[in-house]
Amino acid sequence: MQAGKASIRFEHPPLIVSEGSVVGRKEGEGPIGHLFDRVEQDDKWGKNNWEEAESQMQKEAVKLALSKGGLENTDIRYLLGGDLLGQLIATSFGVMELNIPLFGLYGACSTMGEAMGLGAMLVGAGYADRVVSVASSHFATAEKQFRFPLGYGNQRPYSATWTVTGCGAVVLESADKMEKKNKTDLGHAMITGVTTGKIVDLGIKDSMNMGAAMAPAAFSTIIQNFEDFGVEETWYDKIITGDLGTVGRTILLDFMKEKGHNLTEIHMDCGIEIFDPKSQDTHAGGSGCGCSAVTFCSYILPRIRQGIWKRVLFVPTGALLSTVSFNEGQSVPGIAHGVVIEHRP
Amino acid sequence: MQAGKASIRFEHPPLIVSEGSVVGRKEGEGPIGHLFDRVEQDDKWGKNNWEEAESQMQKEAVKLALSKGGLENTDIRYLLGGDLLGQLIATSFGVMELNIPLFGLYGACSTMGEAMGLGAMLVGAGYADRVVSVASSHFATAEKQFRFPLGYGNQRPYSATWTVTGCGAVVLESADKMEKKNKTDLGHAMITGVTTGKIVDLGIKDSMNMGAAMAPAAFSTIIQNFEDFGVEETWYDKIITGDLGTVGRTILLDFMKEKGHNLTEIHMDCGIEIFDPKSQDTHAGGSGCGCSAVTFCSYILPRIRQGIWKRVLFVPTGALLSTVSFNEGQSVPGIAHGVVIEHRP
Repeated sequence: MQAGKASIRFEHPPLIVSEGSVVGRKEGEGPIGHLFDRVEQDDKWGKNNWEEAESQMQKEAVKLALSKGGLENTDIRYLLGGDLLGQLIATSFGVMELNIPLFGLYGACSTMGEAMGLGAMLVGAGYADRVVSVASSHFATAEKQFRFPLGYGNQRPYSATWTVTGCGAVVLESADKMEKKNKTDLGHAMITGVTTGKIVDLGIKDSMNMGAAMAPAAFSTIIQNFEDFGVEETWYDKIITGDLGTVGRTILLDFMKEKGHNLTEIHMDCGIEIFDPKSQDTHAGGSGCGCSAVTFCSYILPRIRQGIWKRVLFVPTGALLSTVSFNEGQSVPGIAHGVVIEHRP
Repeated sequence: MQAGKASIRFEHPPLIVSEGSVVGRKEGEGPIGHLFDRVEQDDKWGKNNWEEAESQMQKEAVKLALSKGGLENTDIRYLLGGDLLGQLIATSFGVMELNIPLFGLYGACSTMGEAMGLGAMLVGAGYADRVVSVASSHFATAEKQFRFPLGYGNQRPYSATWTVTGCGAVVLESADKMEKKNKTDLGHAMITGVTTGKIVDLGIKDSMNMGAAMAPAAFSTIIQNFEDFGVEETWYDKIITGDLGTVGRTILLDFMKEKGHNLTEIHMDCGIEIFDPKSQDTHAGGSGCGCSAVTFCSYILPRIRQGIWKRVLFVPTGALLSTVSFNEGQSVPGIAHGVVIEHRP
């Protein structure tokens, strides 16, 4: 099942059987706001602080994914998840009461790709009938941890992105299990391959330009995917990055063009889709683990199920920003995890 | 290959073919100090700061594991690793130049168990011929992040543990690959099962008593392992926890006794083995991801290879301590990941 140097092709591709997406008010007001399962108006979700709010989002997204699939927590073998906060507190406190064996993951904003890739590998190998993959971010918890107190009201350069307040969760299931159920009217989405990212560092030292830090990682993973599977961009209906934003997208397209690949038409970036930069003052776009996770669940997945897109390369992108290493003069390396998702009638 | 509710039994158990352990001066002066591959006297490893030192330890430990196995970085399909620092900076910057596809993991001090468990699952499924699992901690980076500046010279209660400065790395290899090589004189160690932990929270709110926070998680994983495999403590020669220390060990043995299991003779804790509390002023014992990782590589693994211990349940334990959630009044939940390792002649 090894394909090439960093990819897996599944003999038994797991199905994405259900999903849940919850977001904050700003995301709900954006161009794809009507597609989310739940839009919460209170940025604290009725809790005492933003961190508890992010945990609550994780709980709600997972529970939504379970209930939409007609599943209980006891039907899930493993939960794979993460967030941007130190020690993954959004995830730890969020999923605790679900009482599911947990693999805690950290891939910065690429975490949804890591969680879906590893989750598909566990299901594909027969280690699990069903897993949940989940990732979240919250604008206020991320700004507090990585940048400035919100009350400080710092100015943001146009290269900066806006951390999405949201959580997306998917249930992955063995296709064998699925055969036993009645087929739904819609088609299915299945994960047919995984390309695992390496850390890529081109020396970006601007914490307000994460797109530039991540674009080389996205480039590396997409090129690796092409090589490992022996394909080109024409094999895909869409190649979708996580949160490069407008600055990162330009860099990615340039890098790809230099290698002879024209991605202008088929590339999409979740960070560009989720906000309207003109009316929402979000500059280069959305970012955070939640950005690709909620855009996948609400916008991408239904289009694959319906067969509008037959084959998608989904590449959540992460910038390994840390205030500690950054203040010590280190650069911001990137990582991107690729997942191949195909329509099945 | 699913066994019980949270465990896997491998049809093709992966072998632990090589390992590397590097530690700091204090660990080198401890009871098992003579067993480590490398003891560094400079707590900054010749680098500019402690974080870079911890990254350097990761690089050295992985390179040692590779060279002892006669391997290059290109022989490794995936690297699974983590550390205690926010955004996993020790791992990210440490393994970057190795250029290996990376799954970043966070399980607090249980990370070595998570990395070995997931790594074994990837090898066991045929997704990888070989993976590296690695985890590190550094006393100074951990104190700086979680507690007080070192210069403050705070007093530590007797329930506190001392974060180990060290990194351990193992190479896991498909047994099929191994058959093709000449057998070594010593026997082998193979991973035959995995029991994945859940988050367990009994409401501990003392950041200076991590043993108490982790003991219920160790208990949960060990009992789950017994149930899933239909065994008792007599099936194992040793049940080895990561860093409960003396306080956590007492709680674990009490909990187990209440369930009718006497672990007094066969339980061992890496945190208790690694320091001499009398001469080294380490109070309840050692802790940190590095504690179980280096003790495993230097002390436990050779004994399994030699057949001194035929079957071991290795249970690295993690306390999900975060200064943010802790200061917001939250408790410190625990998680423990179990790996079954057996001798093979």
